[in-house]
Amino acid sequence: MANYAVKVYISYRKGVLDPQGVAVEKAAHSLGFEKVKNVRVGKYVTMEIEADSMEEVKREVEEMAAKFLVNPVIEEYTFEVEEVKE
Amino acid sequence: MANYAVKVYISYRKGVLDPQGVAVEKAAHSLGFEKVKNVRVGKYVTMEIEADSMEEVKREVEEMAAKFLVNPVIEEYTFEVEEVKE
Repeated sequence: MANYAVKVYISYRKGVLDPQGVAVEKAAHSLGFEKVKNVRVGKYVTMEIEADSMEEVKREVEEMAAKFLVNPVIEEYTFEVEEVKE
Repeated sequence: MANYAVKVYISYRKGVLDPQGVAVEKAAHSLGFEKVKNVRVGKYVTMEIEADSMEEVKREVEEMAAKFLVNPVIEEYTFEVEEVKE
């Protein structure tokens, strides 16, 4: 059994309206950052999972994504897993 | 002038209550993912910036973080910059 650090990056699918992204882009432009474009705001979820193998952790993350973490209709995700050295 | 892809990872500082993280952790446990712990939910902001150099982009991101993107009292951030090959 080892401890694994997981990072999940969840963002809106292309074409889905991203109100937070629009708001951040407007704020940037109004504060003088005119060359900023295509701002998208998503979720960055970090966690630790105890497991016997990297594959087991990956299966758990994919299962969590499918069950409750990600809304596949409007969101897509990527993730990274690293073993935590004690 | 080149185009740069920027990824900003904003998370709560250690010790700051993270209600979303607590909610996600509870959901995971209630759905049988008992070995999940230390769940933290932050923001994942992506954007494109036109600039003359990587250093200019980094300065802009740090300035935006200081001015409106990050609340330094409760949040910390890291970011990555990559030149977009046309």
